[in-house]
Amino acid sequence: MKILFTRESMLYGLQRVEKAVASKTTLPILTGICFETLNSTKLRLIATDLEIGIECIIPCVVENHGAVVLPASMFSEIIKKLPEEEITLEVGEKNKTVITCKNSLFNIAGSSVEDFPRLPDIKEEKIIKISQGLFYDMIRQTIFAVSTDETRQILIGELFEIRNERIKLVALDGYRIAVREGRGESSLNLERDVIIPGKTLNEFAKILSPNNDEYFTVSLTENQILFDMGDTRVVSRLLHGEFVNYNQVIPKQFNTVVEVNKSSMINSIERAYLVAREGRGNNLIKLKIDDEGITITSNSDIGEVREQVKARTSGDSLMIAFNSKYLLDALKATDSEEVKMEFINEVNPCIVKPLNLNNQLNLVLPVKIR
Amino acid sequence: MKILFTRESMLYGLQRVEKAVASKTTLPILTGICFETLNSTKLRLIATDLEIGIECIIPCVVENHGAVVLPASMFSEIIKKLPEEEITLEVGEKNKTVITCKNSLFNIAGSSVEDFPRLPDIKEEKIIKISQGLFYDMIRQTIFAVSTDETRQILIGELFEIRNERIKLVALDGYRIAVREGRGESSLNLERDVIIPGKTLNEFAKILSPNNDEYFTVSLTENQILFDMGDTRVVSRLLHGEFVNYNQVIPKQFNTVVEVNKSSMINSIERAYLVAREGRGNNLIKLKIDDEGITITSNSDIGEVREQVKARTSGDSLMIAFNSKYLLDALKATDSEEVKMEFINEVNPCIVKPLNLNNQLNLVLPVKIR
Repeated sequence: MKILFTRESMLYGLQRVEKAVASKTTLPILTGICFETLNSTKLRLIATDLEIGIECIIPCVVENHGAVVLPASMFSEIIKKLPEEEITLEVGEKNKTVITCKNSLFNIAGSSVEDFPRLPDIKEEKIIKISQGLFYDMIRQTIFAVSTDETRQILIGELFEIRNERIKLVALDGYRIAVREGRGESSLNLERDVIIPGKTLNEFAKILSPNNDEYFTVSLTENQILFDMGDTRVVSRLLHGEFVNYNQVIPKQFNTVVEVNKSSMINSIERAYLVAREGRGNNLIKLKIDDEGITITSNSDIGEVREQVKARTSGDSLMIAFNSKYLLDALKATDSEEVKMEFINEVNPCIVKPLNLNNQLNLVLPVKIR
Repeated sequence: MKILFTRESMLYGLQRVEKAVASKTTLPILTGICFETLNSTKLRLIATDLEIGIECIIPCVVENHGAVVLPASMFSEIIKKLPEEEITLEVGEKNKTVITCKNSLFNIAGSSVEDFPRLPDIKEEKIIKISQGLFYDMIRQTIFAVSTDETRQILIGELFEIRNERIKLVALDGYRIAVREGRGESSLNLERDVIIPGKTLNEFAKILSPNNDEYFTVSLTENQILFDMGDTRVVSRLLHGEFVNYNQVIPKQFNTVVEVNKSSMINSIERAYLVAREGRGNNLIKLKIDDEGITITSNSDIGEVREQVKARTSGDSLMIAFNSKYLLDALKATDSEEVKMEFINEVNPCIVKPLNLNNQLNLVLPVKIR
């Protein structure tokens, strides 16, 4: 194998696939990246930790075809440190690899691609096209509510609902629910519910370009999902099991409704949190809602705080307590400067959503005050 | 005590004194900052960990005089989170402190200033005036060579030589020496050698403005040094003992002299370091110097590297080995795009200095190759 490529295109490819390189693993070869020539002008990079796999195709000049696995972090550091000149990579006997660039020459030990697990072949039945920017937002606005509790396997994933062109991501961890709707493009009449691991969505979000209207396609098998971005493909296992019927849990009737500026509310809770976090768990803050607006208070060993937030309130007065972090997450994820908060009473969940949009909803459970 | 101040001026003061706040300490009060009114428009902030003390005077409106100690990190986080509005701080009975700003109110527990150690009074015999930018550079170009070996107390400090208006900072750790000269302004005829703790210089450098021609003054007592910047004063203990006679160690005669571009040399060593660091200690790289220039090589378990660096060489050919980190530090500290490297043989120290300046010198010991 002998190829020539530019530093820039290799860095692009590395940055794409690095997210799937295994960090700790019982299979040392997974800490490497597989490089293989496809045709005279294309090189494929593959990395996988067996849960998620990413491949990226970059341009190169192929002088001799072949394939090799190279240690990921070492190889990327070398490429980063090389000057902006043409780089040559040549693999000899026993996978000995020589990288040359201008006045630099590296000899490093490669491994055979035979032991490298290939990404599963996914029958390319393209199910839906989604814009990168939209899916990026959908992930960002829900991922924080994914459970980190490994004992409830299904909740470390997000529900991905497909109802023809309407798509939805749902995450919940027993204390809050985050729902975000969007719209893709599809010529199929399809209803599918799959559960995607939170880690996959996290890594995929890092590859997606925010505010970019370009589409990627989603394909599904029984056990796997494929995101295809053209030069880059991300494959991940799906989680199996019954997702919580979140719709049943979301209340529809409320007794107290508040309309408030999101930034004022966030700033006040963040200040209250400085005191709340010193308390005995739960980062507890109290909200008093009445005709005057919202009064946020908290106290702990280090002192007390009181914050007044202007708000348009209607319905019953209410005193309710929250874990400030959960309320902050919900507010920060809401894509609207003005938000609506809806309450039943001090023991039932609160709903946070954009004032004038229906594509997003957050549910947060209150904390009972003794 | 009751004062009014702006968020901006308080943040300025906090940012100055925070560097002296004790992190771990047996004296809890040292994790606080002392605030005391000086006159109707000035507030003094003081922090100290007993090794280094910093005070800063900021503008404020004093309604009632007084003083209080507040927990440093808590107080600064509150100030950072408050809006850009006027802030009121009022201290009541038992040092209970109320901070108010617009719609926010914090009650926090302060401590009595009686237990707070005051900075020593230093008789203000101003010894020398130095420009901030110059001293910043002098510290930056020497501090890396300060020893971290606490068993050789004297070497965790830097020698500060004053010879009338000529000043010098010298750091050494047994493997390398860094010397930087400069010029201050003084009307006294004074020769003094003092040893300033590396930690003090490190923290002081963070307060100094790079590329700023404003002067600060240095005053000295038997045991302390005072840096006075007008609104900010930094006091530190001095180290006592005999500093190494570094002049004796610096060779004056050489057999091999190299003139080389600093960036090319740094880039090549950094690439060689990627391989060297995987070796069995010392980050070993070898330099072969001959008529062709410099060839840098290194090998370790993961592979080999060879780098060619163009250079103007004169004198004997030479093969010499170094800890790549030490050579990198010396080159990076050298303030000149073209540098001169001088060698005697493979066992004697190498000198790195700017090609056309005499204000700076680095000595690096080679590593013996078996």
